[in-house]
Amino acid sequence: MVDAAVRPSTTPDPRESATAPRIDVARLNDALMGTWGDVRRQAREMIKDSAFWRKDELGKDDHRERVLSQLHLLVDNKAVHRAFPKRFGGEENNGGNIAGFEELVAADPSLQIKSGVQWGLFGSAILQLGTKEHHDKWLPGVMDLSIPGAFAMTEIGHGSDVAAVGTTATYDPETEEFIIHTPFRGAVKEYLGNAALHGIAATVFAQLITNGVNHGVHCFYVPLRGEDGVDLPGIGREDDGLKGGLNGIDNGRLSFDQVRIPRTNLLNRYGDVAPDGTYSSAIDSPGRRFFTMLGTLVQGRVSLDGAASWASALGLHIAITYATQRRQFDGADGQEVVLMDYGKHQRRLLPRLATTYAQIFAHDEFLQKFDGVFSGRTDTPDDREDLETLAAALKPLSTWHALDTLQEAREACGGAGFMFENRLVGLRADLDIYVTFEGDNNVLLQLVGKRLLTDYAKQFQGKDAAALARYAVGMTAGKLFHGAGLRQLGQAVTDFGQVARSVERGLREEQQHDLLAGRVQQMVADIATRLRAAGKDKVLGARLFNENQAELIEAARAHGELLQWEAFTDAVHAMDDAETKKAPVLEKTLKRQKR
Amino acid sequence: MVDAAVRPSTTPDPRESATAPRIDVARLNDALMGTWGDVRRQAREMIKDSAFWRKDELGKDDHRERVLSQLHLLVDNKAVHRAFPKRFGGEENNGGNIAGFEELVAADPSLQIKSGVQWGLFGSAILQLGTKEHHDKWLPGVMDLSIPGAFAMTEIGHGSDVAAVGTTATYDPETEEFIIHTPFRGAVKEYLGNAALHGIAATVFAQLITNGVNHGVHCFYVPLRGEDGVDLPGIGREDDGLKGGLNGIDNGRLSFDQVRIPRTNLLNRYGDVAPDGTYSSAIDSPGRRFFTMLGTLVQGRVSLDGAASWASALGLHIAITYATQRRQFDGADGQEVVLMDYGKHQRRLLPRLATTYAQIFAHDEFLQKFDGVFSGRTDTPDDREDLETLAAALKPLSTWHALDTLQEAREACGGAGFMFENRLVGLRADLDIYVTFEGDNNVLLQLVGKRLLTDYAKQFQGKDAAALARYAVGMTAGKLFHGAGLRQLGQAVTDFGQVARSVERGLREEQQHDLLAGRVQQMVADIATRLRAAGKDKVLGARLFNENQAELIEAARAHGELLQWEAFTDAVHAMDDAETKKAPVLEKTLKRQKR
Repeated sequence: MVDAAVRPSTTPDPRESATAPRIDVARLNDALMGTWGDVRRQAREMIKDSAFWRKDELGKDDHRERVLSQLHLLVDNKAVHRAFPKRFGGEENNGGNIAGFEELVAADPSLQIKSGVQWGLFGSAILQLGTKEHHDKWLPGVMDLSIPGAFAMTEIGHGSDVAAVGTTATYDPETEEFIIHTPFRGAVKEYLGNAALHGIAATVFAQLITNGVNHGVHCFYVPLRGEDGVDLPGIGREDDGLKGGLNGIDNGRLSFDQVRIPRTNLLNRYGDVAPDGTYSSAIDSPGRRFFTMLGTLVQGRVSLDGAASWASALGLHIAITYATQRRQFDGADGQEVVLMDYGKHQRRLLPRLATTYAQIFAHDEFLQKFDGVFSGRTDTPDDREDLETLAAALKPLSTWHALDTLQEAREACGGAGFMFENRLVGLRADLDIYVTFEGDNNVLLQLVGKRLLTDYAKQFQGKDAAALARYAVGMTAGKLFHGAGLRQLGQAVTDFGQVARSVERGLREEQQHDLLAGRVQQMVADIATRLRAAGKDKVLGARLFNENQAELIEAARAHGELLQWEAFTDAVHAMDDAETKKAPVLEKTLKRQKR
Repeated sequence: MVDAAVRPSTTPDPRESATAPRIDVARLNDALMGTWGDVRRQAREMIKDSAFWRKDELGKDDHRERVLSQLHLLVDNKAVHRAFPKRFGGEENNGGNIAGFEELVAADPSLQIKSGVQWGLFGSAILQLGTKEHHDKWLPGVMDLSIPGAFAMTEIGHGSDVAAVGTTATYDPETEEFIIHTPFRGAVKEYLGNAALHGIAATVFAQLITNGVNHGVHCFYVPLRGEDGVDLPGIGREDDGLKGGLNGIDNGRLSFDQVRIPRTNLLNRYGDVAPDGTYSSAIDSPGRRFFTMLGTLVQGRVSLDGAASWASALGLHIAITYATQRRQFDGADGQEVVLMDYGKHQRRLLPRLATTYAQIFAHDEFLQKFDGVFSGRTDTPDDREDLETLAAALKPLSTWHALDTLQEAREACGGAGFMFENRLVGLRADLDIYVTFEGDNNVLLQLVGKRLLTDYAKQFQGKDAAALARYAVGMTAGKLFHGAGLRQLGQAVTDFGQVARSVERGLREEQQHDLLAGRVQQMVADIATRLRAAGKDKVLGARLFNENQAELIEAARAHGELLQWEAFTDAVHAMDDAETKKAPVLEKTLKRQKR
């Protein structure tokens, strides 16, 4: 169904000039479907069954039950096991798994995200952070949904700063058990899918304390309900109630009052506790250990980037279809004018379509990178770091773009856009939370910005004091020039005017790339120079960093746009059909994107 | 309740420097409450009663019934009669009526808009377009809600271009009746509040045809239900079902199958039909006649401007309160940092607060203008035109600002912002439609743009051909200079850098005003010059206009921002407390607004 989202009408438009390029729609569509196009097509075929569709009139409670039943349907369709080990019936196909999962957004984002909770978060925590014994014991039940589970990381008091969660897991060598405990209200686990109703177990992140030492946050498998379906002693549940969207998911809170679990329920891939309470880990630094664990869960961000991009495509498909049929106000010829012929309407929709193309192409590269790391083919610490930086750069841009695009699509359809049955408002409401969950967008972009600053600083590593002094002088001169020199910017933009004109005749990649890359470099260099003023004064350093925080986030956004531009350009090159390559939405992207 | 939306904490913040201005919160609040502050306070007091609150868990059907019962409560509280004639118990207080009505948005936007349908649209159509007989017959029932009614203007096929509606009202001199008829599906009345369930009558806009001549769109009072509560013969109703928001309102469709109404049900203030079918009107041009009728209904746009501005204030109140309490990540001192201390967080919220102040001040001036016109004190055709242009400039900016602000506030509260009980997502969903109803924002801004072009052209009226030729030469030179001269822009911005620095020390109004006004002038002049190329070629003219449509809308937006800036500056001047005047959110607005 979304397949068609990017497919222009195949009916020839009589208004088109004879010289307009003939677009090979099937070939363009293949390019957009990307590396795992077969899995995407399979998923789209599956969700043609109305059993997977959202029923808009359902209240929260009925919607939740419907989505749970749809999860069972996914199991029946073998649609959610691709990432799991072959010995449990999986395919160990990480990229394909994410591609298929993303497509569920078109059926109902609640279905997508509840699947993500079960198999992407709860299941992945066991798979990625646990070891063979855990896999044998729980993965079959996770996969067939006989163990619905919650992923209990976020707390009321800590969302972005999850290293600071308050839940404790204190080891008791007497009984060889961990005692999971919520010491204060702010440490209650919050916003967890499957927590309000359906979860019978949870992967709980807690401060591991043994022999009086806190070894930082680790993940534990905690049963919530007994065989009788009743919550186990010490387990507290609360329902989050109505949300702005995703009301097919039973989000809620979990608390633990001295809940005892066996020592072996620690998911011990990155750190373990011996029966006597001795802690061991291959990673010495608690901070690095925790971020290594978190890194194994990056797939959530990967999948949101793809799902958001395809949701944008779906929204544009709806709005552009409407715009090519709806007419309003008489034109010069006395006929009512089709909306798509209005200059403003084109400017509202087409640049967003071009950006969506760019994001879809960028996402496919991202997914290839992810697949390389998680299959082990290209899995070095550098690869992992690059993957996380890529996730932190792309997920914010595509999720914000989805909200912006769905809103513009809604407005472009007027009152019809506001009717729930036309899907735009529901999609937007559901996707709203994508911009702050699995990493708040601004916090993620700040991570990217810090990486950009680090890379920038590496240029000066090993330089002696004299070189640094020369650099400082150069920067001052540069800064003066820059400060006085909006003329310089003016000149650049004037030059760009000529570039823009040449864009009409064909892509002038070099200039475009230079401008976009130069923008990122200049932004980072300016910030680095301002931060340098702090020297070794940590308090001043923190203040200066804070003063430059908004600019750093903008630099990261510019970096993400550059990545998208590069992926887009690569995709145009890969297009082996000369006519299709000239499709306006491909050829003129940069110009329109930056309107 | 919203009263507090703009009230900073009165607890002294120890981090504040001793030189920070002491803000007289009560005085600032009075300034924001504006001319009809007493009515606003009265309304806010009334909606402290939880009977007026939204119950989030209610499904659509229960929500609709609750809002209907709340409308009866408003009647009991004498809260909705201020604009009606004194002889029916009203106050003929147009400004106060709108002010009080706007405040309902804080209780539940569905309550605000359903009230608006009943008393602001349906009731106003009878009041403004009808004459004494109509007033005597129906206004008492409209006011006490014994006649709930729909305002039937928009059709499936025509929303923005309402002059082209398809519904017909054909006069039959035999029976002295009009026959109201829906000739095709696209002419079905659509999106009407009170149409699905509660309306027992409607003011219907239809093409008035008598003696075979179409005299254009007029408004008719059409009963929908008989005494028995059953729909009258020929009346068709459909339910619009679930919407993206405002689900407390029973929007629906109305169709008419040869429905006969008495001749005297024509609301005949601007045009009448004699028993023999002779048409008469004091306004000859059907176009001008229709727009005169529409003009009497401008108050919808007026009230949306105010309601959207106060909804922004409410959203910011919630987000800023959260930001001053929520902490995340350790700071330099080892304490967790309060969100409001992050540079990025300040940049997210404070410029939007300043813009909201500007919109509230601009709205009060707008409301004074509206009150002057509708009270008859300052009611000339020019006043009416100015009022409509003002409405078309301000309503788009404040309604879009509300969506942007409520979304940013939601994101700034993270997951908590997504919980329905914290109000941000519900407010945003309800206000979504404000940007396209009562005039689509882009269509309204285009009206403003056309007015700007007309005013610009007036400069050259009466000039002879030689003067025009000189002008054309000058423009070409100017254009060349402008084209080559992003240097000129660079210079202006460099100068602005100095202005910005002086802003730190105090407002430099002249430069700010010159920059903002110059921006509008330059944009309009550029567009006018490009349009001039068409000469008398109408087809080329239409094409050029369309090519410049997006820029014209941007020029109108710039004009609206200038109006807001002026209102804001006037308000700062009117502040007679020197310390309060220095409140950063007042003093530094321009700088922050244009980040």
